[in-house]
Amino acid sequence: MTVGFIGLGRMGGNMCRNAIAKCGQEVLVYDLIDDAVEACVKVGGRAVSSVGELVAAADVIFTSLPKPENVEEIALGAEGIAALAKPGTVYIDLTTSSPELARRIAATLKEKGIEMLDAPVSGGPSGAEAGTLGVMVGGDEGVFAAHKQLIETFAGNVIHVGPIGSGLVVKLVNNLLGLVTVAAASEGLVLAKAAGVDPRKLDAAIRVSTGDSLAYRSLADRALSGDYTAAFALDLAYKDIHLALELADEVSVPTPMAAGTHNLMRMARGLGYGQEDPTAVVRVYETTQQLTIAEGA
Amino acid sequence: MTVGFIGLGRMGGNMCRNAIAKCGQEVLVYDLIDDAVEACVKVGGRAVSSVGELVAAADVIFTSLPKPENVEEIALGAEGIAALAKPGTVYIDLTTSSPELARRIAATLKEKGIEMLDAPVSGGPSGAEAGTLGVMVGGDEGVFAAHKQLIETFAGNVIHVGPIGSGLVVKLVNNLLGLVTVAAASEGLVLAKAAGVDPRKLDAAIRVSTGDSLAYRSLADRALSGDYTAAFALDLAYKDIHLALELADEVSVPTPMAAGTHNLMRMARGLGYGQEDPTAVVRVYETTQQLTIAEGA
Amino acid sequence: MTVGFIGLGRMGGNMCRNAIAKCGQEVLVYDLIDDAVEACVKVGGRAVSSVGELVAAADVIFTSLPKPENVEEIALGAEGIAALAKPGTVYIDLTTSSPELARRIAATLKEKGIEMLDAPVSGGPSGAEAGTLGVMVGGDEGVFAAHKQLIETFAGNVIHVGPIGSGLVVKLVNNLLGLVTVAAASEGLVLAKAAGVDPRKLDAAIRVSTGDSLAYRSLADRALSGDYTAAFALDLAYKDIHLALELADEVSVPTPMAAGTHNLMRMARGLGYGQEDPTAVVRVYETTQQLTIAEGA
Amino acid sequence: MTVGFIGLGRMGGNMCRNAIAKCGQEVLVYDLIDDAVEACVKVGGRAVSSVGELVAAADVIFTSLPKPENVEEIALGAEGIAALAKPGTVYIDLTTSSPELARRIAATLKEKGIEMLDAPVSGGPSGAEAGTLGVMVGGDEGVFAAHKQLIETFAGNVIHVGPIGSGLVVKLVNNLLGLVTVAAASEGLVLAKAAGVDPRKLDAAIRVSTGDSLAYRSLADRALSGDYTAAFALDLAYKDIHLALELADEVSVPTPMAAGTHNLMRMARGLGYGQEDPTAVVRVYETTQQLTIAEGA
Repeated sequence: MTVGFIGLGRMGGNMCRNAIAKCGQEVLVYDLIDDAVEACVKVGGRAVSSVGELVAAADVIFTSLPKPENVEEIALGAEGIAALAKPGTVYIDLTTSSPELARRIAATLKEKGIEMLDAPVSGGPSGAEAGTLGVMVGGDEGVFAAHKQLIETFAGNVIHVGPIGSGLVVKLVNNLLGLVTVAAASEGLVLAKAAGVDPRKLDAAIRVSTGDSLAYRSLADRALSGDYTAAFALDLAYKDIHLALELADEVSVPTPMAAGTHNLMRMARGLGYGQEDPTAVVRVYETTQQLTIAEGA
Repeated sequence: MTVGFIGLGRMGGNMCRNAIAKCGQEVLVYDLIDDAVEACVKVGGRAVSSVGELVAAADVIFTSLPKPENVEEIALGAEGIAALAKPGTVYIDLTTSSPELARRIAATLKEKGIEMLDAPVSGGPSGAEAGTLGVMVGGDEGVFAAHKQLIETFAGNVIHVGPIGSGLVVKLVNNLLGLVTVAAASEGLVLAKAAGVDPRKLDAAIRVSTGDSLAYRSLADRALSGDYTAAFALDLAYKDIHLALELADEVSVPTPMAAGTHNLMRMARGLGYGQEDPTAVVRVYETTQQLTIAEGA
Repeated sequence: MTVGFIGLGRMGGNMCRNAIAKCGQEVLVYDLIDDAVEACVKVGGRAVSSVGELVAAADVIFTSLPKPENVEEIALGAEGIAALAKPGTVYIDLTTSSPELARRIAATLKEKGIEMLDAPVSGGPSGAEAGTLGVMVGGDEGVFAAHKQLIETFAGNVIHVGPIGSGLVVKLVNNLLGLVTVAAASEGLVLAKAAGVDPRKLDAAIRVSTGDSLAYRSLADRALSGDYTAAFALDLAYKDIHLALELADEVSVPTPMAAGTHNLMRMARGLGYGQEDPTAVVRVYETTQQLTIAEGA
Repeated sequence: MTVGFIGLGRMGGNMCRNAIAKCGQEVLVYDLIDDAVEACVKVGGRAVSSVGELVAAADVIFTSLPKPENVEEIALGAEGIAALAKPGTVYIDLTTSSPELARRIAATLKEKGIEMLDAPVSGGPSGAEAGTLGVMVGGDEGVFAAHKQLIETFAGNVIHVGPIGSGLVVKLVNNLLGLVTVAAASEGLVLAKAAGVDPRKLDAAIRVSTGDSLAYRSLADRALSGDYTAAFALDLAYKDIHLALELADEVSVPTPMAAGTHNLMRMARGLGYGQEDPTAVVRVYETTQQLTIAEGA
């Protein structure tokens, strides 16, 4: 069996190197950036000269790409999977993309005898490097069962959540939850500080109370230190919440909490924080209220 | 030393009985409901015939009351603490009330030589019974230090968070965080179900992902079972978020996430869910989208 | 008959002078600021030395005050109407205040044989000067009918809208409508400018289309000129929308549109625009998006 | 000169018949529905057998279509304008569509020597019939000037608002303003009724106050009568606000007021009011608060 990996960035590169180390198969690698390819070749990957060459040769193709547009191009473009992959190939997309697009691609590939799984990941570049990512998988259960072990070469928690597109729905809802909680924690910290409470004392109390959560902590750690260095940029999180809202639009479900967060993220982008950590939404509140959580905290 | 306890309901009664069992002091008890008094007398409390009698006799007075109005009455009313307690008395309010009211009462009591701590609790009736409540305390550090052990007779986690009113600010922010997360989880579950994903599979994935939290779980447990039996009524949680918004108004801090949740809670009340669990906000989404998370999940 | 007027500011002073000129009765006047009193005395008003003196002597008492707290003090305070006015007096409050407070005051006054009308006004200082204000009146229909002509000495459009408190409910809803429209127009103008459309061309089209309204025009005039000089300060409009939200809270009606506007106004206040025109909410959008509608428009 | 008209529904059919009556040119007509074609042929239009035949023969092509997807098909599809129209043709799209799509189509057509104007209309089927529609036009000023008179054969108020796409931006902002105002008026009426005020009295007062507007009246007329018979369906208005939000997303401008309205419209659709008038958003508030504005008003 030959494995192919397209998209070797901060997420894809780490996943690919873990797969190379553990899957015991030949792994073909492709990326537009030479250094990204080189880093995978060094640990045993084999570079190919084009997407077309990779998709024609691989039995299982993974993609880890920035945006749905990139997925559409690799899956349905002139040199892509639908055009050049052989029947029996399995396509596993690790990108946080659109469920609607996943269903559309899967339907097209099915006609060519190609199965698809949508398998977005959770856990960030550090989880990708450690091989501990969570993966939410949508698609045929048999195909999932047959490839679970392969996915586990680079992930710690691989769950099947339903038919094609379901992995993405779950991922988008998970991110929506995290981002709304970050926005709520932002207004909570600014509210407490404006009401005369030391943010560090608030934080100590929240961490042992019912308001605690991973998302709360990610915000509080950054707001209290004032360091919004991004592992994952606000601009990318904005894409994620946009996809969640697009999904809500398709099924016409009201999402006032997600919409409120979306608007705060646009304000954060407008203020120039798009390349900082997503938790920089707190800086919108800090800016309008002219205070700083970290300062003198 | 004599301890007094006013307000012996689901929260106050449990706290009082733990105090009686562990504090080694005489505990005077008062409530408008005879059965509530009787339950404390049975385990060693001593009933008094009026609020005035209790506040005049006790060295430390605890109150655990439904609403800020009740606190104002006991603290500042004709038969209350300011009127009848002796200098040197310490007043510890366990109610989730308004920080502004706490500051106002404390200032009045100070003139009479009476110290006050605001000490709202977190953990629900079960935590009150088990003696494991979290308590966020505002007020003078010396007074706090002198009474921490007494509070620990009925609580597990007693934290000083700043000057008078700070305990309430922290409590209100903690509850705001929890309720916003419940609203976000509500729209997430309904969105996923409308998009064709089995809520139980979504739930299994969220619980091992970054979107997980205590608040998420409290919502998911109820939405998946369809059982919104309240340990704590939505109408009371609505009072809490109202207090948080009132605080935001005083200090003019924007709180779009809390406001969005507040509106959903009004819809839930309008639909008749005020006596159910606060997580019944999900039923607003279920009602307008004409689906049920629990059904066939 | 003797008329009394308490509160002679930008609104009250103009109304009072119109009443003096047209009502043909003695008009007693009171304000804390000497110049305000003097301006009314000059045109025929008679100054009194205290609120108590005025309320004891007048048959009809008007108040036009900044805030509900001031109304409560004049109506129910030690030197106020309930304490010192004679049975048969009619009290007409022109302040934008709380319907709940109006009902409470009216009930107290009723016991003393004093009738009350709540009669908030619409039209600003220029309308007050021109005598063209709209007045929405709540209270007994007979009392209204008997005093309509007197109110018309300083107003152009005097409407009875229901029992006590109704005038205030209608006024608060009217202002809510105007402020939400201003917020919507703010985001519309910024959206169009960011999308490359000249705000002046947008404006020309909106003014002849279905999106046109008085509130839209008040925003567009200021945003296009960049001149937010206030006839009426954003801080006062903030008080009005706060009263509307407090009312919504009492009757537990969801008001997401008003809440969204309220939050934008808090941001505007945080950014330092509280003393500018209420339409300065557009500056929140301008600030976060780093553009200016007026500039180069 | 030959004029072509594609899309002869409630809007397009009326515009087309006015054009036939007044433009003095041959008008080719096309629609998928025979009756719609027949109604235009009766007054002098000439039916063609396909889109391709029309676009190849016409010098000026108008389209009035339900959705952006339809516009894309007619403009860029295999049988469409880019494929078959001759150089020198002018394409005028009357559909409320996406500015981004308009720019994309215009760029493609430009390469073929075809000019495009985006010219969305305002005023509803009655305005289309009366020939009094407002038209907001984007595109080259010379092309606009040369075709203004032709557009005026079916419209009363034709304004040039900027380069290609600008007409749509202005239209979307206009509709955003109207729909937000409808939502605000909805919550205002329900709030007043819940606070004990007769909606008819509120309405009489608002119509002579600063809260008045066309959008307010469209809501109030329907809410007071309880008759939501649609001239224009809520589902179509939902498409419009979706397009406005999509535009906001492209330029990353926060639109909390539009987003709030969008969510209420989703609730209205979920409750089954998609085919009623867009003002049926008030029924969301009526449903959750269990009251009816019209009833006993």
